[in-house]
Amino acid sequence: MNDVLASLSNTGIAKQLGVPRVPVLRRHRPGDPLLAGPVLVASAGGAGGRFAKAVAAFVEENGQPVVGAAGEERLHGVVVDLSEARTLADLAAAQQLLTPAVRKLGPSGRLLLIGAEPADAFESGGAEAAAVAQALDGLVRSVAKELRAGATANLVVVAAGAPPVAIDSSVRFFLSARSAYVDGQVVHVAAPIGVLPEPAEVDDPLAEERPLAGRVAVVTGAARGIGASIADTLARDGATIVAVDVPAAGQRLADTANRTGGTALQLDITAADAADRLLTHLADRHGGVDLVVHNAGITRDKLLANMTADRWDAVLAVNLGAQLAINDALLAGGSPLREAGRVVCVSSQSGIAGNRGQTNYAASKAGVIGMVRALAPRFAERGATINAVAPGFIETDMTATMPLATREGGRRINSLRQGGLPVDVAEAIGWFGRAESGGLNGQIVRVCGQSMLGA
Amino acid sequence: MNDVLASLSNTGIAKQLGVPRVPVLRRHRPGDPLLAGPVLVASAGGAGGRFAKAVAAFVEENGQPVVGAAGEERLHGVVVDLSEARTLADLAAAQQLLTPAVRKLGPSGRLLLIGAEPADAFESGGAEAAAVAQALDGLVRSVAKELRAGATANLVVVAAGAPPVAIDSSVRFFLSARSAYVDGQVVHVAAPIGVLPEPAEVDDPLAEERPLAGRVAVVTGAARGIGASIADTLARDGATIVAVDVPAAGQRLADTANRTGGTALQLDITAADAADRLLTHLADRHGGVDLVVHNAGITRDKLLANMTADRWDAVLAVNLGAQLAINDALLAGGSPLREAGRVVCVSSQSGIAGNRGQTNYAASKAGVIGMVRALAPRFAERGATINAVAPGFIETDMTATMPLATREGGRRINSLRQGGLPVDVAEAIGWFGRAESGGLNGQIVRVCGQSMLGA
Repeated sequence: MNDVLASLSNTGIAKQLGVPRVPVLRRHRPGDPLLAGPVLVASAGGAGGRFAKAVAAFVEENGQPVVGAAGEERLHGVVVDLSEARTLADLAAAQQLLTPAVRKLGPSGRLLLIGAEPADAFESGGAEAAAVAQALDGLVRSVAKELRAGATANLVVVAAGAPPVAIDSSVRFFLSARSAYVDGQVVHVAAPIGVLPEPAEVDDPLAEERPLAGRVAVVTGAARGIGASIADTLARDGATIVAVDVPAAGQRLADTANRTGGTALQLDITAADAADRLLTHLADRHGGVDLVVHNAGITRDKLLANMTADRWDAVLAVNLGAQLAINDALLAGGSPLREAGRVVCVSSQSGIAGNRGQTNYAASKAGVIGMVRALAPRFAERGATINAVAPGFIETDMTATMPLATREGGRRINSLRQGGLPVDVAEAIGWFGRAESGGLNGQIVRVCGQSMLGA
Repeated sequence: MNDVLASLSNTGIAKQLGVPRVPVLRRHRPGDPLLAGPVLVASAGGAGGRFAKAVAAFVEENGQPVVGAAGEERLHGVVVDLSEARTLADLAAAQQLLTPAVRKLGPSGRLLLIGAEPADAFESGGAEAAAVAQALDGLVRSVAKELRAGATANLVVVAAGAPPVAIDSSVRFFLSARSAYVDGQVVHVAAPIGVLPEPAEVDDPLAEERPLAGRVAVVTGAARGIGASIADTLARDGATIVAVDVPAAGQRLADTANRTGGTALQLDITAADAADRLLTHLADRHGGVDLVVHNAGITRDKLLANMTADRWDAVLAVNLGAQLAINDALLAGGSPLREAGRVVCVSSQSGIAGNRGQTNYAASKAGVIGMVRALAPRFAERGATINAVAPGFIETDMTATMPLATREGGRRINSLRQGGLPVDVAEAIGWFGRAESGGLNGQIVRVCGQSMLGA
């Protein structure tokens, strides 16, 4: 589908506008190797970072050579461990490593920096170290805007106490084709919550193709659009799907359940008994739940000057109120949420940047962010996590009905020069949903191709 | 000058592009009343917010009527205290208040929301309260994009323990014409650090015209551009200026010092003895310093793939290294920084969003943000604060040499549809620089007209 979109975008409009060709993004296909070529792995600062060795081992386990410096060959990825960078000299050393390396990055290449939390860096190296840690944020967001041909750049910030294993699932995600539309992002990783799976499982190639095997995943709004893609993608990765949507979704909900081999639950998530009914279904039919995806959402756009109470209330009830009620129930005694449970909420770029005509929607989606951050410690107490994805411009039935200029604008104002696909959102949810992702909690990750729109 | 720019922008290009007229922003002129009309002051949630009463008193002291709900008359401002909003019902009540109110907001009108810290709200009202507190972020950023005719919308988030007086200087700034180009911003206020000035001084109309009277302010990079405007603006507000620039700036530095009635110090701030020389000048010639403005900065743009060590190092040394060294010296024993001292750093939108061709500049400006956050508690220990402004597109000699399309693009992609002026950056620095602004510490405020560009 991406090839179709890319070729469409390469004709007509794009050429008239004189804009550069739209790169075709490499996306995950079952059976494809995780890495498409050699990966440069290096570190700068102190005695070297504490993650480079594990990253190098991961690359070799996945059948690709590790190189220490840029040479003649095209690189699949460049990973620079700056977790011990504390001085401007360390930062300069990173630039010297990166400049020749980015020249060699291939199509859909991956630049990944690993940094320290500024507050941790301050403890060991003072204000200069905190500044250097934060400088990586400006560096990675800038270079992400410079890379071409579908290459991305992201930053994983690791807390002082986190062991190398904490970042495994994130390194895997960012180096792989699963992160095709995640660009210019900064993710914070801490010591994993709860019990990590045995490494043997992680190293098993089959485990990588079906990382959600044995896990029960509920997806709200699963009848169509992004929700249907989430259900399909999580099922592809081994999860048992519980597809939820309003009764009016009818056959499309049944289709999702049948396609994924899961169960369907017709439910108005804003009903007073919705959380009860959902949790009862999960307990009775599936014996529990491992992954809850709060995807259902609606828009009722109107300028604030013309906003009506019913439009405001409907959007807040579906997009935020229902998530709050279900999360409350998940945290209550007797909840079916199992150890290594994962809650993933769908926020939106509008919840971060705001959007004209969407005070209600943006308030609800910002509210989701506030909820995720507030509840992260509560879920951690149960050995679980809660995170959010914030999609940017994603190609759906909804965007297909936009006026052409609006649609083309939305597609183009990001570093990858195209809209994302529903599967891109789904892949990020799958990453958060893995049992190995216990180091990620309270995080908000945009799936937006590094949209220029921000706050 | 703004009128000239606005009229230029209203001809030619703008009309060809079919874009709306550029609003003329009301800016501060000495002698003008602070408020241009009635202000709606209201609150929603709980027993009402704890700040509305103080805001109403402030409006009346400044000679304008306070109204409780939107009527027929044009409003200068709308202030809604949501510090006690904890539920979706409270948020809906806010929408019901705001919808008729924004219709009545006049040209260069001011919408100001006052909210709680999500973490504090969580303590008293659980996840729903945290979500509601964060929802204000999405709401204010959206409505800021909807307002027209130079009206702005901003959010002041107040910590649970902060007394009403903590937000006085921020309410004053955001309601006044001094904040003309600050839009869509979220500022966090806590209990004030150090000793606040006597209220009598604050209420004195002369004190408002010269809020920096008796304070010594050093400005680096003061010979030209934004730095010269900072010096002029702080001098207008009563400060004694110490103008610093490189020896090569020559007569222009002397001009700034003479124009403002201050002293000039020729200094390469990257020299090993620069901090020593600066602090000695401040102690010997002025007996101390109250306000340090780290404005000096350079660009050496190049794609990372073509970056050279000298370009990287020069930018990091001037924009970040020099600030680090001077701040170190300010925090050391025997420092001339006085009680209620204020350090204000100039970061950049590029340090938040990244920018193509500016990995070095963006790293340095992100580094400034890391430094500010890390040092805020250290300065607080001395009764002082450190904050940063992050300018967006500001009309300077530098932007005047940009290609026309780039310049027009930069001017237009913000909610106020124009570039800012150097004085807009200077006014924000003056706000942070006031003795009354002890509740602001570790803050980064963009002066960007709510540029769409973000992270």
